[in-house]
Amino acid sequence: MKLSQIAEKTRCRMVAANDVEIHGVAGIEDAGCGDLTFIANRKYIKHLKETRASAIILAEEMPEVQIPSLRTSNPYLAFALALELFYEPVVPERGIHPTAVVAPDAELGPNPAIGAFAVVGCGCRLGRDVVLHPHVVLYPGVELGDGAVIHAHATIREKCRLGKRVIVQNGAVIGGDGFGFAPMEKGDFYKIVQAGCVVIEDDVEIGANATIDRAAVGDTLIRRGSKIDNLVQVGHGSHVGEDCVIAAQTGLAGSTRLGRGVRAAGQVGFAGHLQVGDGATFTAQTGVPHDVPPGVIMSGYPAVENATWLRCMAALLKLPDLIKRVRDLEKSVAALRDQSGN
Amino acid sequence: MKLSQIAEKTRCRMVAANDVEIHGVAGIEDAGCGDLTFIANRKYIKHLKETRASAIILAEEMPEVQIPSLRTSNPYLAFALALELFYEPVVPERGIHPTAVVAPDAELGPNPAIGAFAVVGCGCRLGRDVVLHPHVVLYPGVELGDGAVIHAHATIREKCRLGKRVIVQNGAVIGGDGFGFAPMEKGDFYKIVQAGCVVIEDDVEIGANATIDRAAVGDTLIRRGSKIDNLVQVGHGSHVGEDCVIAAQTGLAGSTRLGRGVRAAGQVGFAGHLQVGDGATFTAQTGVPHDVPPGVIMSGYPAVENATWLRCMAALLKLPDLIKRVRDLEKSVAALRDQSGN
Amino acid sequence: MKLSQIAEKTRCRMVAANDVEIHGVAGIEDAGCGDLTFIANRKYIKHLKETRASAIILAEEMPEVQIPSLRTSNPYLAFALALELFYEPVVPERGIHPTAVVAPDAELGPNPAIGAFAVVGCGCRLGRDVVLHPHVVLYPGVELGDGAVIHAHATIREKCRLGKRVIVQNGAVIGGDGFGFAPMEKGDFYKIVQAGCVVIEDDVEIGANATIDRAAVGDTLIRRGSKIDNLVQVGHGSHVGEDCVIAAQTGLAGSTRLGRGVRAAGQVGFAGHLQVGDGATFTAQTGVPHDVPPGVIMSGYPAVENATWLRCMAALLKLPDLIKRVRDLEKSVAALRDQSGN
Repeated sequence: MKLSQIAEKTRCRMVAANDVEIHGVAGIEDAGCGDLTFIANRKYIKHLKETRASAIILAEEMPEVQIPSLRTSNPYLAFALALELFYEPVVPERGIHPTAVVAPDAELGPNPAIGAFAVVGCGCRLGRDVVLHPHVVLYPGVELGDGAVIHAHATIREKCRLGKRVIVQNGAVIGGDGFGFAPMEKGDFYKIVQAGCVVIEDDVEIGANATIDRAAVGDTLIRRGSKIDNLVQVGHGSHVGEDCVIAAQTGLAGSTRLGRGVRAAGQVGFAGHLQVGDGATFTAQTGVPHDVPPGVIMSGYPAVENATWLRCMAALLKLPDLIKRVRDLEKSVAALRDQSGN
Repeated sequence: MKLSQIAEKTRCRMVAANDVEIHGVAGIEDAGCGDLTFIANRKYIKHLKETRASAIILAEEMPEVQIPSLRTSNPYLAFALALELFYEPVVPERGIHPTAVVAPDAELGPNPAIGAFAVVGCGCRLGRDVVLHPHVVLYPGVELGDGAVIHAHATIREKCRLGKRVIVQNGAVIGGDGFGFAPMEKGDFYKIVQAGCVVIEDDVEIGANATIDRAAVGDTLIRRGSKIDNLVQVGHGSHVGEDCVIAAQTGLAGSTRLGRGVRAAGQVGFAGHLQVGDGATFTAQTGVPHDVPPGVIMSGYPAVENATWLRCMAALLKLPDLIKRVRDLEKSVAALRDQSGN
Repeated sequence: MKLSQIAEKTRCRMVAANDVEIHGVAGIEDAGCGDLTFIANRKYIKHLKETRASAIILAEEMPEVQIPSLRTSNPYLAFALALELFYEPVVPERGIHPTAVVAPDAELGPNPAIGAFAVVGCGCRLGRDVVLHPHVVLYPGVELGDGAVIHAHATIREKCRLGKRVIVQNGAVIGGDGFGFAPMEKGDFYKIVQAGCVVIEDDVEIGANATIDRAAVGDTLIRRGSKIDNLVQVGHGSHVGEDCVIAAQTGLAGSTRLGRGVRAAGQVGFAGHLQVGDGATFTAQTGVPHDVPPGVIMSGYPAVENATWLRCMAALLKLPDLIKRVRDLEKSVAALRDQSGN
């Protein structure tokens, strides 16, 4: 494909002496002759001079380069669009695989793709163009919106409702029982039935082996557009706002309330029964025991503002030496006091 | 259902001018007319005045309220019991689904519910009333006690033994190979066969996508009544005592020994080969590298008593300023020494 | 089996008055009469005097013991070899289970063992002696090397390539979509197709419910001999070097590059786009935000050298007291200054 065609389809401005032929898209270190590459992370600017790529997608404000470039205000999006031009997806076979077990009263929309050994329980309702890969299990009463794609070995538990174009990666569990037990006198526990549902709105993606629990009462809710990475735990009754990005291995304890556009890096932990304001960001491994206002960047455990945390962690490295300095001061002051006759 | 009936069935004392009609149970913020609500977490007392619930479950010692209340010494248990009165569980179909593959020599107790595509390996022995949801896999030689419930996509590996009423949530793996490798001269590793079993006693619950590993020798053991949350890792040869509560994403490295009634909040890590005393509690993200005595509350990494940790973390926020103060002191002391002629 | 036979098969030197009969291998605390035991972890030396084992595997340099011993330079390996002499593995049935769904164009090598409900997608190519336990799903275009063993409920996504003797534990997901989204103007996200593959070289083991993501471009790569524990996340485009050992619940964010022989204890987090040198070691819960040179031992977050971290954490416990001491010094210095007329 000519670079000019790619420019058109990705809505970029082409800056090039020649309209080169492009065969594929590759990372800046791996790209060779015929490849289009991109810079999405500033760490990789250093590779610009050495790349063997035939062309590059760049932000408008980036410096001039020797090779043909596609300029845009959103290079990451242009990269995504360019990639699709060369990508050959695995297209799931349409229809219902003869081995699938679909309850007689389940309602399937037009054009389903239901794979081998998939199980669709009683009373399930699926929109149009839904894809269930092999080995998906829908417990009774599940609802899936148009275009939902559920990957192999994912489970959607009873009565959970997923919106349009929701993607559930392999092995994710939507609607497992919340971790709710009433403590008894003798130290043992009484299991509390988890009567609530999980509701996942349109355009959400749930990562592989992630777990989104149902609650005893009320819904666990993932709002429109949020992206939940692999191995994330969303506890019973938590609400995740719109367009949140929750990276791998993060955990929300239960009844956590995240506002809109919250971002959590990996392995963050949120205690239960707390509120996080819109647009708050959490760096990796942050532990959040309390409410957080909108827009802040938080780090550490217990979480404080990132700038404070950075200052404290830098100071901590000086602490062993500081202890010595205080000891020296104590000696000096004692000597001065002796000398002054106190 | 009348509130008085609920009071009787939940063994509560009714405090009410009118015996109101209750249609369901809901959280204090979501409850509307006809709902019974409850306060289990003190954070929610502030909502007492605004709730639109028709009645509330409260501890005996809580203040008087305007709406009808059910008083009890264990409001959380009363809530659980009340919830059951209105809950319509999904009842798995009894019998053996025609697609299930059950080994000819497997012994099934009375009244099984074995779902679609379940696999029961050679020599498995199942008690009465066992539920295997669709897509459960039991490797050969597994034993399940009466009333055990195994959810879709859970795997129980060879020869593991689960007690009565054990519940395994979706995707959990019981008896995967422990992470044991003998280091070789060239830096590579020799896999050690994991010949041990996992033994899970009565009334244990294992969360979704949790992993409980088998060991090379000896049993990995989860004792009676313990509750293990989603995505928890229990390493090879670890023992979890009775009535422990281990929250999501916590990890036990291997050969860890937890006493009775230990509680770990989310994302806690226990190093291997250590002993934790009965009733010890660990706050979220605590890292435990050493033995811990009974009854203490531990935090931080390396774990120290919670009170110490809180004091240290508060002090840490003052450290950048403290460094400045020490520098000032050093100047002052130098000046004093100059002045005194030293 | 006679101890002398075991000595021969494990290449140990026997030190024994009598050539005792051995019936099994057990841990030092559980071992009884007829058992061979071992010490692999120095913590257990204290049990040496009380063990009821009939014989023990010991390193050459360990002190003399009362019971017969097998001496070797690698006691852990000798233990592994001895254990195999008594271990009766579950042998998967060879052939293709009648319920398995194998694409007509899939190429199977000699002597396959393909379990119930396994799915082998179009264009898959399997080497000789491959074992697919029940409920394994191979998406189209997967390649598995000779002797690969894939456990129940594991998924290998489209076009991923696994080498010889790779073992994938239950529920692991190889090749799930990387967590890549282009931010859009309104705060929502555009999913980037994940066109890359996961490549896993020979002799790698992947733990239960671990997730190894594919990338938008380029391969995610696990090199020969590396061992990845349960619930580990390997992000899109990361490379794990040869003979690495990555313990449970560790996460690699994306485009992380680990050298050869890197060791990470549990719950470690690696930020994306960083390089870790050969042989670096990370203690549990370490958070790694930057490049790390070869051979170092790192701890804490942000990670520093372990010795520094230990010193800082010890100092932190003294910080509350240090603050008091500084306050006292300030008073003393103020008094001295008053006295000296400043």
